[in-house]
Amino acid sequence: MEPVSSNRCFGGEQNVYTHASEVCGTDMTFAVFLPEEAKKKSVPVLWYLSGLTCTHENAMTKGGFQQAAAEHGIALVFPDTSPRGEGVADDDAYDLGMGAGFYVNATQDPWKPHFRMYDYIVQELRGIVQGIVPSNGLHGITGHSMGGHGALTIAMKNPDLFTSLSAFAPIVNPSQSDWGRKQFSAYLGDDESTWADYDATILLKERGWKGDILIDQGASDQFLDLLKPESFAEAVAARRQPAVIRMQEGYDHSYFFVSTFAADHVAWHAERLQSTGN
Amino acid sequence: MEPVSSNRCFGGEQNVYTHASEVCGTDMTFAVFLPEEAKKKSVPVLWYLSGLTCTHENAMTKGGFQQAAAEHGIALVFPDTSPRGEGVADDDAYDLGMGAGFYVNATQDPWKPHFRMYDYIVQELRGIVQGIVPSNGLHGITGHSMGGHGALTIAMKNPDLFTSLSAFAPIVNPSQSDWGRKQFSAYLGDDESTWADYDATILLKERGWKGDILIDQGASDQFLDLLKPESFAEAVAARRQPAVIRMQEGYDHSYFFVSTFAADHVAWHAERLQSTGN
Repeated sequence: MEPVSSNRCFGGEQNVYTHASEVCGTDMTFAVFLPEEAKKKSVPVLWYLSGLTCTHENAMTKGGFQQAAAEHGIALVFPDTSPRGEGVADDDAYDLGMGAGFYVNATQDPWKPHFRMYDYIVQELRGIVQGIVPSNGLHGITGHSMGGHGALTIAMKNPDLFTSLSAFAPIVNPSQSDWGRKQFSAYLGDDESTWADYDATILLKERGWKGDILIDQGASDQFLDLLKPESFAEAVAARRQPAVIRMQEGYDHSYFFVSTFAADHVAWHAERLQSTGN
Repeated sequence: MEPVSSNRCFGGEQNVYTHASEVCGTDMTFAVFLPEEAKKKSVPVLWYLSGLTCTHENAMTKGGFQQAAAEHGIALVFPDTSPRGEGVADDDAYDLGMGAGFYVNATQDPWKPHFRMYDYIVQELRGIVQGIVPSNGLHGITGHSMGGHGALTIAMKNPDLFTSLSAFAPIVNPSQSDWGRKQFSAYLGDDESTWADYDATILLKERGWKGDILIDQGASDQFLDLLKPESFAEAVAARRQPAVIRMQEGYDHSYFFVSTFAADHVAWHAERLQSTGN
């Protein structure tokens, strides 16, 4: 693993690393924010999964999460959204291939060899993060748009690995959306029964989540038809799933929306990650 | 004037505009953050001047100023750092020409026709901002690096226009630095007596500032030799100028440094812009 950069930020360190990923079969870059507390004691870890076209950098520079993470003494992890580099399959569209991994393990060519973002996040990067962050063993997960889909699906499938869960404008029903059907067809093939395992609305109906869930959604989001918050809201109500879904008047899909509510989400996770922590 | 974008952000609006600038003789883009209070009452205005290579966008997306501006009910203005477009002179170097206007009025060819960022900020854009923002008439000014130079020099030369003053890692003695001598030679010519009017250390010695000044400077800034904070610190002490100069351990020149102290600067300006305000 190679350090790429390290900048002091809100009393802590915003670090970027690159490493040869075994799971993805290519070099991967990710960022970790360490609060000042991490020099002296173990801290919780909050994962932020980014949306379409993003890298590790977008939320690290524009999300405004470090301020609240420093206040609460929480580490942040910002993974990339797909494998990248020579030999990695791609598509001209912004929403398929590089920058659009959708946090699945692809089973179809040409994606199968490298597009294994699910295993990358849950297994490989988690192990690496445990080696870098003096973690108290408690992890929360959040994300934006495609990354909100990633956070919801990864958490519900791995309740032993994650303690707290939230999302910003998540894609919640990809098997019924053009942000999902196109990508799942490509990565997973035409047998739609294999898609259910990566659909937050279906997973919620079938499994639910052990804790409560915070979701912020801009009411003026230009992609509401693709995100389908109504599907998830219906499933939450039907299952009596503890959750707070906030439709935020006037907010769109941008990082101006994400940064506005970043501190709320960090506080949400902090409360749940520290109450049972060290 | 044309609206480019408008995003809800921390309860207010982050707006971007473009307009045909008479002073610069080309289209110019700038951003304005309006806090929610601006719908109901007049608010103070804080100007943020950006550094080399930046546009209106860098601090707007990475500076983290909106959160504090919303809390204090202050509008923010983010101008561009130079004229741009066809027919505007440029140089291959990152630190001359487009993105490097240095907030001067150029007197030398080929820069003279368009590079008039001093007049643009002080006269033209100020007038436009007064038309957009329901301003209480009180303006503060800050900036980063080249923009810190701009803030210090513009404020000291226009004490009637600005009430409060701060800077992040400002270039404070450009006539004695390679970040300054090169550009002043090009824009202002070889007669160094014309440079003094754009040198914060000289202006402070000669005129001082009517109020107090806040400066944050990273102690691990990779450009310390070019910024020359010691020149300004010496002038502050010699003149008994009320000022707070904070050498911040471990911080570099990046927006990770700026965003860390953004809230402190907004609060500094808020205190000075509202105590005498409406």
